[in-house]
Amino acid sequence: MNTATARHRELLEQLRRLVGPANVLTEGDLSAWELDWRRRERGKALAVVRPASTQEVAEVVKACAAARVAMVPQGGNTGMVVGSTPDASGSWVVLSLTRMNKVRHLDAGNLTITVDAGCVLQSLQEECERAGFLFPLSLASEGSCTIGGNLGTNAGGTQVVRYGNTRELCLGLEVVTAQGDVWNGLTGLRKDNTGYDLRHLFIGSEGTLGVITGAVMKLYPLPKAQLTAYAAVPSLEAAVQLLGLAHEFLSAGLTGFEVMGQFALSLVVKHFPQQRVPFWQESPWCVVLENSDNESETHARAQFERLLEAAMEAGCVTDAVVAESVAQARALWHIRESIPLAQAQEGLNIKHDISINVSRIPAFVAETNALLLAKFPGARLVTYGHLGDGNLHYNVQAPEGEDQARFLNEEEAPMNALVYAVVDRYNGSISAEHGIGSLKADKLEHHKSPVALGLMRAIKQALDPHHLMNPGRVLRD
Amino acid sequence: MNTATARHRELLEQLRRLVGPANVLTEGDLSAWELDWRRRERGKALAVVRPASTQEVAEVVKACAAARVAMVPQGGNTGMVVGSTPDASGSWVVLSLTRMNKVRHLDAGNLTITVDAGCVLQSLQEECERAGFLFPLSLASEGSCTIGGNLGTNAGGTQVVRYGNTRELCLGLEVVTAQGDVWNGLTGLRKDNTGYDLRHLFIGSEGTLGVITGAVMKLYPLPKAQLTAYAAVPSLEAAVQLLGLAHEFLSAGLTGFEVMGQFALSLVVKHFPQQRVPFWQESPWCVVLENSDNESETHARAQFERLLEAAMEAGCVTDAVVAESVAQARALWHIRESIPLAQAQEGLNIKHDISINVSRIPAFVAETNALLLAKFPGARLVTYGHLGDGNLHYNVQAPEGEDQARFLNEEEAPMNALVYAVVDRYNGSISAEHGIGSLKADKLEHHKSPVALGLMRAIKQALDPHHLMNPGRVLRD
Repeated sequence: MNTATARHRELLEQLRRLVGPANVLTEGDLSAWELDWRRRERGKALAVVRPASTQEVAEVVKACAAARVAMVPQGGNTGMVVGSTPDASGSWVVLSLTRMNKVRHLDAGNLTITVDAGCVLQSLQEECERAGFLFPLSLASEGSCTIGGNLGTNAGGTQVVRYGNTRELCLGLEVVTAQGDVWNGLTGLRKDNTGYDLRHLFIGSEGTLGVITGAVMKLYPLPKAQLTAYAAVPSLEAAVQLLGLAHEFLSAGLTGFEVMGQFALSLVVKHFPQQRVPFWQESPWCVVLENSDNESETHARAQFERLLEAAMEAGCVTDAVVAESVAQARALWHIRESIPLAQAQEGLNIKHDISINVSRIPAFVAETNALLLAKFPGARLVTYGHLGDGNLHYNVQAPEGEDQARFLNEEEAPMNALVYAVVDRYNGSISAEHGIGSLKADKLEHHKSPVALGLMRAIKQALDPHHLMNPGRVLRD
Repeated sequence: MNTATARHRELLEQLRRLVGPANVLTEGDLSAWELDWRRRERGKALAVVRPASTQEVAEVVKACAAARVAMVPQGGNTGMVVGSTPDASGSWVVLSLTRMNKVRHLDAGNLTITVDAGCVLQSLQEECERAGFLFPLSLASEGSCTIGGNLGTNAGGTQVVRYGNTRELCLGLEVVTAQGDVWNGLTGLRKDNTGYDLRHLFIGSEGTLGVITGAVMKLYPLPKAQLTAYAAVPSLEAAVQLLGLAHEFLSAGLTGFEVMGQFALSLVVKHFPQQRVPFWQESPWCVVLENSDNESETHARAQFERLLEAAMEAGCVTDAVVAESVAQARALWHIRESIPLAQAQEGLNIKHDISINVSRIPAFVAETNALLLAKFPGARLVTYGHLGDGNLHYNVQAPEGEDQARFLNEEEAPMNALVYAVVDRYNGSISAEHGIGSLKADKLEHHKSPVALGLMRAIKQALDPHHLMNPGRVLRD
């Protein structure tokens, strides 16, 4: 038995004492923790450890730190960039937070909820709704992802145009540091200027600086009505103009603004023929808008009508429908939500989760399309996304009839390079909402400025000097 | 001539070459830069240096860093906690950013404005309004303070309940690091998950980690109407209940919610008898509310009426007026804004800029009042503030007839200690919006957790290892 093995065995013993043997998993099928959500990489953990409290997390971190064993914090393991699974070495501990899934306190007067990191997002939404409040974070994986994971990755979703990313919804944090100390920053204060903002440093750091164990999140009154409209727009420029009008007419009522390109919609029609997709044949782009109203459905409808009339007059909308029922609204949103699935049905594809200043998106798309099609003739562009936030899913499907595996294998790297080079020229982001993980850590080194990388490295070194917290993720070691 | 003097002389020569001799001030009355806004401390600078560009700031910082000379970044020098003036040693350089006062770019489609740090807040508000947009940061010193200073201190103000603090209004930053490198983080992206959030680390760090030289700030469509209401409420509990109803009925239309205690209002009546102050005699507390509407004044008024009717029915409002004109609205706001001046007219007083979770403010005030009056009989409590954000200005006037200078001198420290101890028990903040500076740096050590302080010190050490950026502020050296 070599020293590493002896050290590991001793640590496992200690961990079993700390959290109970049933919560230190080392055998059997650990795919749920070791395989990433998109099934791109399978890791191998020394153990999956499932603490039940902040104190247990702190003790586990202390033990791992003393043994110089790396840790990867994990929530629902629904990340898109291979950031919450262990590497293949078999020497990391997966720190699964899912047993910490209690709502600690809902403070109606303060419009806040204090939660364990392991709370599943959807349960949280439901619990808030039962109490008469809206917790507005909403994303595709909400049935599995946890609020701790949302915070660790600063998750986005469909209502960012109104409520911001997870970061903007968080007022306080509880974090176990890389040394195993507990930082209790669980305040629900809307104003607190007492030193550096540690909260925002941990949010979005993808488990590389510490372990988020709890949070205080903002609540909003439940809207009285939520209406969905669907509009055909003659160009991306027109979509941006419509967005401006929507901000003006709906103000904070605008809670969703999604754009979908014609080819993306054609894939929905092709693979889900039972869905009724309005206007897709006549229009190069369609938009889904959501208006949340604190007054009444009648008021929301009148607001939508005023907006759409003004937009038609301005020429930026050619046709539009407003859903007449909740079922119709769901059906319209379902079109948007079906695009990723339709894409998957169509075959393998190359994904880009990018953001650009909203005003420059039309120019960006025109320029990138032209460069891309010149270099990859026949490539099919699946462009859609959260236009309200400047966030596009700029995805590319193999040319019709082409060997898809070959396409993905051979063209992904050069196509990424082409797209990201234009993103750089437009001062955009190569990861709008999915984060860096290990999937994009190499790319980050090329697309982030050396000064920014230097500052990030200095912070990592200061807070996690032994590089034990999710090492090599975000920043390459 | 000793070595320090020789080194300083050499640095001054170099600085004159970098920014021109006219922009290196060493003689004459430098009070504007050396004396803090509240005239509590007069510093002495080695020089006041006034660079005209980011590049010049970088070169100045490099030169000072090489000479191991400390720097204090300064905007309008309107801070409340002695954080933007030099210490008394005569060995620091004041880095005044006021020559950098250009708007670089207004992007209507992206709803952003990119500005130099030295732009005066009010000019910025006006420029945005001329372009048809709202820049919602608003505070008492807006005629003098700069956006760089607002960012450095994460300034609050009167519209935080809707738009957040300066932090929440910033999408991108440009910063000169302690090493004199330029970090260009000037994006207007609403989503960007590419590594640690450096922006939020520099915001609110009070010039102790680097120098903010530019920023991208959010804009909003101008509201169509802005109405002000003024209500008498029977208790602080009722004020909190009214706040909840206002969130429900006005939603994001609620852009201001201020509370004022009876004694605070009585001081306004006493010292500014020309002002008409409604309801102050009948009611222990009054509230000012603002409703910003994207539709019309008629709609805003109907909304306000619905809210006030519901509040009266619930018993949390006993009487109310809604301003019928802009002049009336101004007059109502003027009452609130006159409290600090009325207080000053009444004499010296002890100030606390604190925040507590909104729901716990009534209990906090009751408990603190009782403890305080038991220990300091006759002390007169001037309680008012941004209740919508849980931010109270909990100030104390000397007992009637008492020697005020003695009161301030002898009672400030024990009274601070008493108030802050209750703030701690309520998990509140000892500096809601004014920051730490040097005034509260000692206090921070007692009221912030050792873990938080340890993290902050590690970050300071990592980014400014020679402690040259505003040393001893926020964190004691």
